[in-house]
Amino acid sequence: TNEFDFTNHSHRRFNPLSNTYVLCSPHRAKRPWQGAREEIKKVALPNYDPKCYLCPGNVRATGDVNPKFEATFVFPNDYPAVKLDQPNYVEEESKDSLKGKLLKTQGVKGKCFVICFSPNHSLTLPVMSIPEITNVVEAWTSLYNSLQREALSGNAPYKYLQIFENKGFAMGCSNPHPHGQAWCLDVVPTEVDNELQNMQKYHQENLTHMLGDYVKLELQEKERIVVENDSFIVVVPYWALWPFETLLIAKEHLRSTQDFTEKHKQDLAEVLKVLTTKYDNLFNTSFPYSMGIHQAPLQCSEHEKDASWFHMHFYPPLLRSATVKKFCVGFEMLGEPQRDLTSEQAAARLQELSGDFHFSRN
Amino acid sequence: TNEFDFTNHSHRRFNPLSNTYVLCSPHRAKRPWQGAREEIKKVALPNYDPKCYLCPGNVRATGDVNPKFEATFVFPNDYPAVKLDQPNYVEEESKDSLKGKLLKTQGVKGKCFVICFSPNHSLTLPVMSIPEITNVVEAWTSLYNSLQREALSGNAPYKYLQIFENKGFAMGCSNPHPHGQAWCLDVVPTEVDNELQNMQKYHQENLTHMLGDYVKLELQEKERIVVENDSFIVVVPYWALWPFETLLIAKEHLRSTQDFTEKHKQDLAEVLKVLTTKYDNLFNTSFPYSMGIHQAPLQCSEHEKDASWFHMHFYPPLLRSATVKKFCVGFEMLGEPQRDLTSEQAAARLQELSGDFHFSRN
Ligand SMILES: O=P(O)(O)O[C@H]1O[C@H](CO)[C@@H](O)[C@H](O)[C@H]1O
Ligand SMILES: O=P(O)(O)O[C@H]1O[C@H](CO)[C@@H](O)[C@H](O)[C@H]1O
Repeated sequence: TNEFDFTNHSHRRFNPLSNTYVLCSPHRAKRPWQGAREEIKKVALPNYDPKCYLCPGNVRATGDVNPKFEATFVFPNDYPAVKLDQPNYVEEESKDSLKGKLLKTQGVKGKCFVICFSPNHSLTLPVMSIPEITNVVEAWTSLYNSLQREALSGNAPYKYLQIFENKGFAMGCSNPHPHGQAWCLDVVPTEVDNELQNMQKYHQENLTHMLGDYVKLELQEKERIVVENDSFIVVVPYWALWPFETLLIAKEHLRSTQDFTEKHKQDLAEVLKVLTTKYDNLFNTSFPYSMGIHQAPLQCSEHEKDASWFHMHFYPPLLRSATVKKFCVGFEMLGEPQRDLTSEQAAARLQELSGDFHFSRN
Repeated sequence: TNEFDFTNHSHRRFNPLSNTYVLCSPHRAKRPWQGAREEIKKVALPNYDPKCYLCPGNVRATGDVNPKFEATFVFPNDYPAVKLDQPNYVEEESKDSLKGKLLKTQGVKGKCFVICFSPNHSLTLPVMSIPEITNVVEAWTSLYNSLQREALSGNAPYKYLQIFENKGFAMGCSNPHPHGQAWCLDVVPTEVDNELQNMQKYHQENLTHMLGDYVKLELQEKERIVVENDSFIVVVPYWALWPFETLLIAKEHLRSTQDFTEKHKQDLAEVLKVLTTKYDNLFNTSFPYSMGIHQAPLQCSEHEKDASWFHMHFYPPLLRSATVKKFCVGFEMLGEPQRDLTSEQAAARLQELSGDFHFSRN
């Protein structure tokens, strides 16, 4: 008999998407915390802020004026991490020289976008309506489609579109106006490339899709499900790294938003609303996170496209309260990611919270 | 001709130790920052704090009393992430079942230690003397030796000792008393295992050591060196991820602290003092970081031992000032690590700072 107790004994769990391990030390949640606390700014935000560079009608740093948009608004980032307009990088070192072996470089071109979720400065996803969130899903979809058209017609070198949202000051967001970003590159970024390779390998070995199988398993086990509907399931993945990390997965084989029907778009909006509402209700705070979409590259082989499976990662830092977060530092950076509670314990906490009723609406 | 300009055009640099890329967007340093700022606590600390659980003679949470130590003090962590005393994990699933394929688990045993660097509550490495820092190096060395003896005699299942320091509240440190940690596990953690594999592969392909070659190259190029002496060199590695990340490397093939002579120990203390002094002088603040040692596993094949090369990583989060840090969030988590200034720019900043004179001693 196996007296091993997951809630009391240290173990590592394997993440098949990233091909790495996470160390789980559940008994460690008991240690007292005397370290840093996040600041909470509980200022009620106005619907319109004349100084916000994302509000409708306002002037941005570059002098551009935002239109008086009514739903979503997508525009090129004024401080982009990548640009289209730069020379090609030409490798000058021979591959056998020390420099050629050790200092490997690639030029990167691309375009960065900001996606305003709403004209209303004071909103966040959980307090937006499902039709409003559906507009955001719609904006993600159109951006993917239009960039892919540019790429396939040979007008731009785009390979991958990374859509994401940094929410809250704790996650490096510098403007509370509800918005996300999208960085479009002429390479597939490390994390996505690594996932794609692992998913392809799984497909070759098993003739089934990794995330399809994983959905099946989670529906059987039921222990880690946070919310689901006809099209999507959200779980605290078995291998979660952040305390309340979740993975949102398409139930059927949708390779990108391009495979979405209208029903998929609405269903995605619905689970996003329920998930983010539960998050806010966990510590009665506007819950910080970074989240983003992983889907098929804009340009890739049929094989890669087929291995792709629409999913979203939510990486929230909070651990014990609105002010105490998990630090992924020392051992985590140098050795291995480490967590203090099991995925099942985190899922149980999220399960019991309301997904309809937002704590601020009392 | 290559008009590509590293200080103006986006590019990716390959990290051969971790086999990943970092995206470098140097022009992006110009964007204004309106986001979170770290709090600076500029309280002068007493030499002895009666409430500190690391000060000599004080009582810890467990009731244990610290000895009146005079140099360093090593003791088992009261809230360890791993323990020796737990049952073995027995895999119950068949490898072909969905569970066997997707939910892979390993039990992990080990022991965690705290290493007080000094009895003096108010110190940090840069303001300790070289003999005092040499005592810390000595403590790291003895811990490695004694745990390896236990392992090789079959009394403990230890495979790897991860020595590290989290410095500053921003890096999850909850007690300013100068101290580091050491987690000893019966597995080689993900990051270390990955590095070891990449170093072994390099050795097989080139018949030379990756880090030996890299030291040679950096000594030729001189552009990224922060400090060096007879035994060690510190560089901002070509592939640095954090703004002022550094890599400290043994100049000759030292596989672990076990290969150290007395001179190596003193030389290590010396570069640690200069490096951390420069760090503090950069923003006139006690510079936060996570740092740690990567060296040969306690138990491994001769091949792995030979591929090992003593080095230390310093991961500091600050970007622009004592209060503005780099956020590794959205794109970094979901896509690829991204940085705003080049390694060469960061190295130039660190080079011009004094490594003798500490800003607080005016
Ligand atoms: O062990 P400590 O100092 O309480 O904790 C600190 O270091 C650990 C190891 O890097 C991290 O897991 C914790 O998140 C951090 O707060
Ligand atoms: O682009 P922003 O919102 O100014 O910046 C934020 O998101 C970026 C992408 O995740 C990060 O690189 C920055 O560190 C973060 O502050």
